[in-house]
Amino acid sequence: VSQPLSGFRDFLPDELKLRKEVLAKVECVIARYGFEPLETPTLERAEVLFGQLGDDEKLIYAFDDHGGRRVGMRFDLTVPAARVVAGNRDLPRPFRRYQTQPVWRADAPGHGRFREFLQYDFDTYGSSSVLYDAEILCAVHDALDALSLPRFEILVNDRRVLSGLLALAGFEPAVEIAVLRSLDKLDKIGAAQVRVEIVDKGLPGAAADRLLGILGEAGEGGWEERLETIARRFAAGGIATGSEGVAALRCIFETVTEYGLTAGSLVFAPALARGLGYYTGPIHEVVVPGGGIGSICGGGRYDDLVGGFSGEAVPATGTSLGIERIMAILGERYIGRRSALPHSVLLCATEPLTQRQALSLAGTLRGHGLVAETFLDAAPLRRQLRYANKRGFESAVIFPRSSDETTDLILKDMASGDQQMVPLEELLPALLARRKESET
Amino acid sequence: VSQPLSGFRDFLPDELKLRKEVLAKVECVIARYGFEPLETPTLERAEVLFGQLGDDEKLIYAFDDHGGRRVGMRFDLTVPAARVVAGNRDLPRPFRRYQTQPVWRADAPGHGRFREFLQYDFDTYGSSSVLYDAEILCAVHDALDALSLPRFEILVNDRRVLSGLLALAGFEPAVEIAVLRSLDKLDKIGAAQVRVEIVDKGLPGAAADRLLGILGEAGEGGWEERLETIARRFAAGGIATGSEGVAALRCIFETVTEYGLTAGSLVFAPALARGLGYYTGPIHEVVVPGGGIGSICGGGRYDDLVGGFSGEAVPATGTSLGIERIMAILGERYIGRRSALPHSVLLCATEPLTQRQALSLAGTLRGHGLVAETFLDAAPLRRQLRYANKRGFESAVIFPRSSDETTDLILKDMASGDQQMVPLEELLPALLARRKESET
Repeated sequence: VSQPLSGFRDFLPDELKLRKEVLAKVECVIARYGFEPLETPTLERAEVLFGQLGDDEKLIYAFDDHGGRRVGMRFDLTVPAARVVAGNRDLPRPFRRYQTQPVWRADAPGHGRFREFLQYDFDTYGSSSVLYDAEILCAVHDALDALSLPRFEILVNDRRVLSGLLALAGFEPAVEIAVLRSLDKLDKIGAAQVRVEIVDKGLPGAAADRLLGILGEAGEGGWEERLETIARRFAAGGIATGSEGVAALRCIFETVTEYGLTAGSLVFAPALARGLGYYTGPIHEVVVPGGGIGSICGGGRYDDLVGGFSGEAVPATGTSLGIERIMAILGERYIGRRSALPHSVLLCATEPLTQRQALSLAGTLRGHGLVAETFLDAAPLRRQLRYANKRGFESAVIFPRSSDETTDLILKDMASGDQQMVPLEELLPALLARRKESET
Repeated sequence: VSQPLSGFRDFLPDELKLRKEVLAKVECVIARYGFEPLETPTLERAEVLFGQLGDDEKLIYAFDDHGGRRVGMRFDLTVPAARVVAGNRDLPRPFRRYQTQPVWRADAPGHGRFREFLQYDFDTYGSSSVLYDAEILCAVHDALDALSLPRFEILVNDRRVLSGLLALAGFEPAVEIAVLRSLDKLDKIGAAQVRVEIVDKGLPGAAADRLLGILGEAGEGGWEERLETIARRFAAGGIATGSEGVAALRCIFETVTEYGLTAGSLVFAPALARGLGYYTGPIHEVVVPGGGIGSICGGGRYDDLVGGFSGEAVPATGTSLGIERIMAILGERYIGRRSALPHSVLLCATEPLTQRQALSLAGTLRGHGLVAETFLDAAPLRRQLRYANKRGFESAVIFPRSSDETTDLILKDMASGDQQMVPLEELLPALLARRKESET
C-alpha cells in the first residue's frame, strides 16, 4: 500500500530536479519563439475526448462524476487545447501556446510506457501558412539541441502526399487508414511484411506492389530529387492534392535550410503516416537513430480539429515532445551524478539554544541567496554531517557547544573535508567568497 | 462543449503567467530552506485515500480502473506524500519536501472554490523537534512576505492544548471531535452560538460554559500572559498533555521572535482546531484580517499519519499554502495590468521571401536571449501590428517589400509608436541597447 499504482510513478527529489531542469530548458527555447503557456483541466466532458482517438479510446480513464456526468481524464493536450481555442474567440490570432501537463492512458505498463506521463506540446492556431509548419520544426530542433541530445533526425512527410500515393497506387479513399496503419511500420518490419499485412486486410496486392514500388523509387538521393520523383508521378497522374503536399514539403525544406538546420537533421520520409487520424497536411516525427526507443516527438498540421468544437474553421499546426522518452535518453547520462545543492550550507547545532541561533543565521544567509538549512533534530554531530553529505550540501557550519571555550563556528567544506574556525560575523563573507570562487 | 466542466478552469496565458510567477517566488524561498521537490501520481489506490478525511471522503473522485481496481484522484498532497515517505526508507532523514500539484474535490463550485485546485505543501518528516514546527512558520512567513501579500496573521495553537482544555471543561475524550468542529467556528459565529451548537449535539452545557470561560480568560494580553493563564489551569488540573502543548507553543513563540518575526504576525489562538483529524501537536492557520476570504494557509504536526502506511512511526510537520486564495488576493492587484512580453520583438513581413528571412533573423535574436516571433500568415502589415499590440510585444521590426527602394528595416517601439530605419546588420545591436536601457 506504500507503493504507487502500477504504471504510475512517485518522483523523488533527485529525479524530479532533473525533470524540472529539462522542462525549464525547453521552456526557455519555446517561450523565446513567442509561444505562451496554457493549461487545461484534468477532467473533460466525455464528448470532448471521445471520437478523436479511434481504437485507442478504450484507453481513456472515464467515469460518471458525482452529478452523473460522463467525464474522462485527458489523454493528450491537443484535443483540450483545440477546445480552448474554439471557446475563446478573442484570443490573439495566430494563437501560439505551449502546454506541459500529464496525460493518462490505461495502457499496459512496460519499458518506458506509463499510465500517467508528461507531454510537452506547442502549437500555432489560426494560420494555414506552411511557414508556421516550418517554424515548428525549427523550434523542435532548437529545443532538442538545447538539451544536448545525441544526434536526432526530424522525419517529415505530408498527409496529402500519402493520400496521393495511395490514389496513384490504386487504393480506394475508404481504405486509406487501413493501408496507412500498415505502411507506418515500413521501417520496422520491411516492405515484404507490409505487403503481407495489406493483403491480409483483404486489399489488392497489386496496389500494394505499386505503392511500395513508388516509395522505393523515391528513396534515392537528397530531398530535392526525392520530392521531384514523386512530383513527376503526381503531375503525370493528375493528383492535385498530392502536388500540393509536395509543394508544402519543398517550402519546408527550403525554409529550415535557410534557418540553418543541417541537411542530415531533416529527412523526407514518404512512408511516415503517424497514427492519429486528425492530421491534414505536413507531419513529422523525431527519432534518435540507433536509440531503440521509438520517436521522441511527433506532430503536424490538423486544420479540422478546432472546427469540430465551434464550427469555425481554425487551421492549426504543432508538435508534442515525448518528455518521458527524452528523460530516458538524458537520464542515462546522469546516472551516478552527484546531486549537489549549489551554494548550500547545513547549519549544525546540538543544543536547543544554538539551534535557535542557527535558525536565525540561516535566515540571513537565505537573504543573500544561499540555500541554508538548519538541522533541528536532537542528534549527535556525526549524524548531522552524514545527513549533510547524503543531501549534497556544499558546506556545513558547526556551532560550538555551551561547554566549549570558543564561540567561533567551524566552516567545513563537505567535498574536501577541510575545516576552518570562523567568528560568527565572518561567516557570511566567507560563504559569499566561496560562491564567487565556484562561479568563476 | 467548448467550455470546461463546471468547477474546472482553463488557464489562458495572461493568468497562467501570473500563477507561474507566484509559484516561482514561493519556490525560491522554500528551496533556500533546503526543501526539495516531490511529485506523486494523480491516481492512488482507494485504500490510500479513504479513511483519512471523515465526512469529506464523499468528495473524492473515485472509480474502478480498467483492471477493476478501485482508485481515486488525490484530494490533498499530505496523504500521498506520507505514503511516499513510508515506502522509501532510504530517503535522508529528516526528509524535507515541497510539492505543488493540483488536487480534486467534487465540492459544489462557488466563489473561489473549485473542483480542481492547486496546493503548495512543504513538510519535514522524521523529527519530533518542535523547532521544525517553528521553522515551518518562518518559511510560511517568508514565502507570503516574498509575495508582498497585505498584512497577514499566523494563528497558532496546539492540539494537546485543545484536548487539555476540553478535559478541563469536563468533556469526555470520545466527544472531542464533535466539540472541536463547533469550537472551530468561534471566530465566525461567536461564543453564544458555539454553545448552542454543542448543546444541540447532546453534550453538556455546563462543560461548554467552562470551556468558553477559560478561553475568554485566556484572551487577554500578549502571548506570554495568555499561555501562562492556560499553563496555570493545566498545572492545577494535572493535565500533563495540555502542559506539553503549552511548552511547545512557548518554544515556537520564542524561536520565531528570535528569527525576527514581528509580534503581530504570530497570534496564539486557543480555539483554533483545524478540520482534519490527523494533527497531533502544534497547528496553524494564516488569515488576512478583513480579507473576507478565509485562511490562505494551514498545517501542523501529524506524527501518526506516515506510520499508518508502514507501521514505522515517522513524526511529521508541515503546511499547505492555499494558492487559489492567494491568487485571488494578488490577482485583484494585477487587474488591468498590461501583460507585456519583456525584451520581445515581432518581426513583420508580408511576402514569403522576407518572411523566411525574418524566420532566420529571429533565430539569431533568440540566440541573444530576446523573445523573437515572426508573423508568418499572409496578412497586411496593419493586422500584424495590431497583433503585436495585443500580444504586448515591446518592439516590431518591419521588413521592406520587394517593391520598396530600400533594404533597411523599420524598428518600431510599440509603446510610443516611434520608428527608425535600421540596416539589417544594425538591428541586433539596436535591440540589445534597448534591453540594456530598460534594465537600468
